[in-house]
Amino acid sequence: MILLISGPSGAGKSTVYHELLRRDPRLGFSVSTTTRPARAGEKDGVDYDFVDDAEFDRLVAAGAFLEWARVHDRRYGTRRDQVAALEAAGRIPLLDIDVQGGVQVLDQVGVEVVSVFVWPPSWAALEARLRERGTDSDAVIATRLKNARWEIGYADRYAYWVVNDEVEAAVRRLEAILVAEGCRRERWGAAPVQAPARELE
Amino acid sequence: MILLISGPSGAGKSTVYHELLRRDPRLGFSVSTTTRPARAGEKDGVDYDFVDDAEFDRLVAAGAFLEWARVHDRRYGTRRDQVAALEAAGRIPLLDIDVQGGVQVLDQVGVEVVSVFVWPPSWAALEARLRERGTDSDAVIATRLKNARWEIGYADRYAYWVVNDEVEAAVRRLEAILVAEGCRRERWGAAPVQAPARELE
Repeated sequence: MILLISGPSGAGKSTVYHELLRRDPRLGFSVSTTTRPARAGEKDGVDYDFVDDAEFDRLVAAGAFLEWARVHDRRYGTRRDQVAALEAAGRIPLLDIDVQGGVQVLDQVGVEVVSVFVWPPSWAALEARLRERGTDSDAVIATRLKNARWEIGYADRYAYWVVNDEVEAAVRRLEAILVAEGCRRERWGAAPVQAPARELE
Repeated sequence: MILLISGPSGAGKSTVYHELLRRDPRLGFSVSTTTRPARAGEKDGVDYDFVDDAEFDRLVAAGAFLEWARVHDRRYGTRRDQVAALEAAGRIPLLDIDVQGGVQVLDQVGVEVVSVFVWPPSWAALEARLRERGTDSDAVIATRLKNARWEIGYADRYAYWVVNDEVEAAVRRLEAILVAEGCRRERWGAAPVQAPARELE
């Protein structure tokens, strides 16, 4: 199983999934690779793998990415070896990626992807959250709003919609989605109970 | 949304859903109509609507049933007006019906049915639960075991499989399924957030 989370920036999705990661040790965060510079407080290899354009080109050429996309003039990608290492460790990879990348994942991988689109409670709330950060210029905020509009247009590709009206409620919805997905018939390799051979009755 | 629960007798499904009904007031139990006689402690109109064969024939002829089936030489049916009354009251009808009836419901009603097959933890556990009741003869138990084998053969038609290894765990899985289903994209009439007209940016 892979947990794919997308949603416009300003929906508060990272707050939600960081809390989910804290509660559910089965999950493991898939660290994306990006060409954008680190913001204050971001750690290389934890928040992102920060690389330069030449290294990103090399990874693309090597087929290292499950998906990659250009967002806000920077490139972001999910490395196959990251996802494989989490799976090898028996964990559920959690991917936080933009809709361009999300759609690539959905097109490649089948039933094993649980896709969730995180919505802000309202457009005004999204805009307020973007402004609250205080680190971005008006031009950057305008780009993010334009992008949010575009991201929302892809929400129909996601199996689940979670509105982040309140972090605790949103986290519980995600937890419920993981439990329910574990009960889906398609995820069982075989019936949990076999009736014995007829003559034993 | 309709919650359809099936599973062999001896899987303990009624214990599980009675607890679910107790916890979640949105759910309402759809009382089945049957021609079998009431067992000790069963109340007419609460556990079942007990009717005679002539009345059952009349209801069948009147098209009153969403589904009906013959099980263990008795007839059982779900009345459309029962389900409609629960829906009109804003509740989620919970249907506990055998697989014959369940498959009829699945074939008639679309995405709004959440179908769950409840499994016993093992065949031995199922057999033990059937014998524990102490009210049934060996012949009745043999019939129920034969029937359980047959019910299990229909499990593939159900969207979710819940193993009743422990009542609390099974109830939590059902609760999670209801929450997750409420987040499914198909259940949203419209996007929860609309981007404003472009010029407002």
